[in-house]
Amino acid sequence: SAAPTGAILTDVGSVKEPVVRALEQAWTRVGPVVGAHPIAGSEAAGAAAADAGLFRGRLCILTPTSATDPIPLGRGRALWQAVGAGVEEMPAAEHDAILARVSHLPHLLAYALVDATATSTIARRAVLDYAGSGFFDTTRIAASRAEIWRDILIANRTAVGDALGELRAAVDRLAALVEAGDAPALDAVLSAAATVRARIGRER
Amino acid sequence: SAAPTGAILTDVGSVKEPVVRALEQAWTRVGPVVGAHPIAGSEAAGAAAADAGLFRGRLCILTPTSATDPIPLGRGRALWQAVGAGVEEMPAAEHDAILARVSHLPHLLAYALVDATATSTIARRAVLDYAGSGFFDTTRIAASRAEIWRDILIANRTAVGDALGELRAAVDRLAALVEAGDAPALDAVLSAAATVRARIGRER
Repeated sequence: SAAPTGAILTDVGSVKEPVVRALEQAWTRVGPVVGAHPIAGSEAAGAAAADAGLFRGRLCILTPTSATDPIPLGRGRALWQAVGAGVEEMPAAEHDAILARVSHLPHLLAYALVDATATSTIARRAVLDYAGSGFFDTTRIAASRAEIWRDILIANRTAVGDALGELRAAVDRLAALVEAGDAPALDAVLSAAATVRARIGRER
Repeated sequence: SAAPTGAILTDVGSVKEPVVRALEQAWTRVGPVVGAHPIAGSEAAGAAAADAGLFRGRLCILTPTSATDPIPLGRGRALWQAVGAGVEEMPAAEHDAILARVSHLPHLLAYALVDATATSTIARRAVLDYAGSGFFDTTRIAASRAEIWRDILIANRTAVGDALGELRAAVDRLAALVEAGDAPALDAVLSAAATVRARIGRER
């Protein structure tokens, strides 16, 4: 396939390396291929969830390769800046490794937490009838569209697997301190995490 | 120790079995001991976070034992109903097993997710600089006070360990489908979880 002069071939997907590679393989001239991922959105979907200010103040990551032409790249940057986003460039593989840790893995965990509790009962009481705000916050993104997250998780499976390994190590460490009743060491880990979480704030 | 006639010995802790047992062991007459846990609150703490409507429409679980007198129990129920809460009674051990799954484990996971990413870098970029709303929701409760959650997790360690085992099974199942690239089976699990999560809503 060939793109007309002046065209940009871009996308807004959450996984960049396989998409950019596939686009560059599919087109005769690869210069116009500009991978893009605006970090914004919610679990909502469809036209009713449209929001003209969705990208304002958010970050859009562009993932040019050595084959990307500077002119389409500049037009992609201008497009995202025009809707209010900040723009940063990085290699697609780095984008995918970062997003595996801050987005894809949290989605997998949220789905797993709902899956583990969905039919769980204690003495014939459904445990989800007792969920409070903590559970609701932690699992909000598990209401996201399954077919999108199925594709993201599979497309980025290697990085998601790496991120899951890091999380398992952190969970194992916390679980061991809980099991041992090691209050001082547990307090140190929880305090450090609480400080980091309070510092990064509610939203960027 | 002895309680004056008409007194209620109650609490608002998130773990009931060890607290109720300790109170019943410490007092001469155990009838006035009424374990209570209002399921409400947030990661905020201190007088500035006070909210007169905090318990309105929420659930408060009371955990009487065979030794609890009906009169203090009735006064405990009336107290929580007076601030707008619904009241439900169940054995302390059942409360602890349920809360391990819908509250204590989600807190452990949120702390672990922040711990795993706090100092994580990809090509010298701090991954948390790229966190979006999904990460913020999922980890909001990791800003909770560490000394409270240290004590809750250790006090309820057996049930938390059981709940973590169930979650690990769900994570392992999802991770295996991702690793295998089994899109139809992964879609089925994610769709079922998304349906459950959408049904329970934002908050109760």
